[in-house]
Amino acid sequence: MENAKIAVIGLGSMGLGMARSLLRRGWDVCGVDLSTEARNALAAAGGRIAETPQAAVDGCQIVLSVVVNAQQTETILFGPGGVAAAMTQGSVFVSSATMMPKASREFADRLASKGILYLDAPISGGAVKADAGELSVMASGAPEAFDIAEKMLADIAQKVFRLGDKPGVGASVKMINQLLAGVHIAAACEAMALAAKLDLDLPQVYEVIKGSAGNSWMFENRVPHILDGDYAPLSAVEIFVKDLGIIQDMARAERYPAPVAAAALQMFLATSGAGMGGDDDASVARLYASLSDVDLPAPKARG
Amino acid sequence: MENAKIAVIGLGSMGLGMARSLLRRGWDVCGVDLSTEARNALAAAGGRIAETPQAAVDGCQIVLSVVVNAQQTETILFGPGGVAAAMTQGSVFVSSATMMPKASREFADRLASKGILYLDAPISGGAVKADAGELSVMASGAPEAFDIAEKMLADIAQKVFRLGDKPGVGASVKMINQLLAGVHIAAACEAMALAAKLDLDLPQVYEVIKGSAGNSWMFENRVPHILDGDYAPLSAVEIFVKDLGIIQDMARAERYPAPVAAAALQMFLATSGAGMGGDDDASVARLYASLSDVDLPAPKARG
Repeated sequence: MENAKIAVIGLGSMGLGMARSLLRRGWDVCGVDLSTEARNALAAAGGRIAETPQAAVDGCQIVLSVVVNAQQTETILFGPGGVAAAMTQGSVFVSSATMMPKASREFADRLASKGILYLDAPISGGAVKADAGELSVMASGAPEAFDIAEKMLADIAQKVFRLGDKPGVGASVKMINQLLAGVHIAAACEAMALAAKLDLDLPQVYEVIKGSAGNSWMFENRVPHILDGDYAPLSAVEIFVKDLGIIQDMARAERYPAPVAAAALQMFLATSGAGMGGDDDASVARLYASLSDVDLPAPKARG
Repeated sequence: MENAKIAVIGLGSMGLGMARSLLRRGWDVCGVDLSTEARNALAAAGGRIAETPQAAVDGCQIVLSVVVNAQQTETILFGPGGVAAAMTQGSVFVSSATMMPKASREFADRLASKGILYLDAPISGGAVKADAGELSVMASGAPEAFDIAEKMLADIAQKVFRLGDKPGVGASVKMINQLLAGVHIAAACEAMALAAKLDLDLPQVYEVIKGSAGNSWMFENRVPHILDGDYAPLSAVEIFVKDLGIIQDMARAERYPAPVAAAALQMFLATSGAGMGGDDDASVARLYASLSDVDLPAPKARG
């Protein structure tokens, strides 16, 4: 498999990191993205650049799609110049976009009718882990798709959760993870801005909570941004506007009430509405502060 | 300090566990509680039983109060037969009840006027850790109060967070912890019942989330109860009805909106309203299941 060809579609912070991880592990990566900056970054790391998605997938056994959602996946696969028409029979489309499980199953069915395999492979871990090849992948799909994609997944991920042979299971588990992650970020922000309102020593509160039953992965990860006043985006507010939105759409379709996630979504929406959609998602704390006359640690100058 | 006398007021699951830990470490514990069962349990562990709170505190340098809230603390201290009238000058009242910071500061002031010290010392960790002497204590108060209570705190706790010399800080930090803990329990239940609605393999989802960014201390701790269908109360639904209620009262008084915690409180209330108030707080998952035609793992027979 040394220097095997792979196409990476979408070179945002996650896709670029994954492409770089693959390059370091000897893959012949051909990337495609609308952004000149993203294309230059891949070229600087030793990757090839294709002018069109169809050109990128030419001769590839694996096409790794790291676009944002189901709509972009639809465009990439079946829109004008879509890759479904150019992919090799028996090759596999590995989809890391976050989407409703139903959308994932539909893509798999439509590609199957063209003799193309589909692997449902949403990712978790953030840009830093993407760049280090240490993501978590929540994968499901046909055994033949896993056979082809297995080594590639191991090269981008620290943990590959193999969740059975039905597309949509990976997407579903990712949604469950995002529900929790989004609620935990909003709760961390609600709690820390309240701590500021109560005139508590925020670094002390952080240390106590880290060692207590109120801790979460997101609390540990995001609260330092609040303590540093640093809202440069590692993961932007808009990501959870999207993901908690998908969860509400899915829950509504299932006739499942999800009021805690709904409340969290409102706070991400308010944060975006107040002009912070592109900032780090710990900015939800700034929204709470603005609602309650609270001073958080001042933002530092950005590098 | 060997066989030093200490009064423990309130022998519920937390107070009894703390009293037992103190007995094992050589304290001469005198307990008081309205429940015969609780009194018998302390006697069986080698403790002395007092007929009244005033009798219990006689000759004690430390009075450890493990009642539920500010109202019970008020009664114990200043109600008919209250201990404030019987405590020795210069002794310390250590309060582990969860209450609003304001109430804690008021108790401290009223006791100070009688020459009695007050230590704000709410606890975290649950009944199992109480019994093992491994609680977390979030303590604040005068240095003289700490001087007297320090060894006792070390004997009931794995971690004593010393949060300064103002009563109310311990209570505030405990509230921040409970906000997060309550939201995380509700989110874990919302997520796992949704996973069941999506026909996912629940033990598999648990394993994936534990290793992903959606994890929390409460997710890891409570979801096994759902997987086992075991809702025998380790911590009852009513505890978070109380604690998230205090948080809403406090947030309202501060003019601080806390919509995520408010949504979580509604789900604890609904779970209690549906008849599960005395069951384990993972029962919130059963409430979600009942709202959405979902089957969770069946409850096992209780021992």
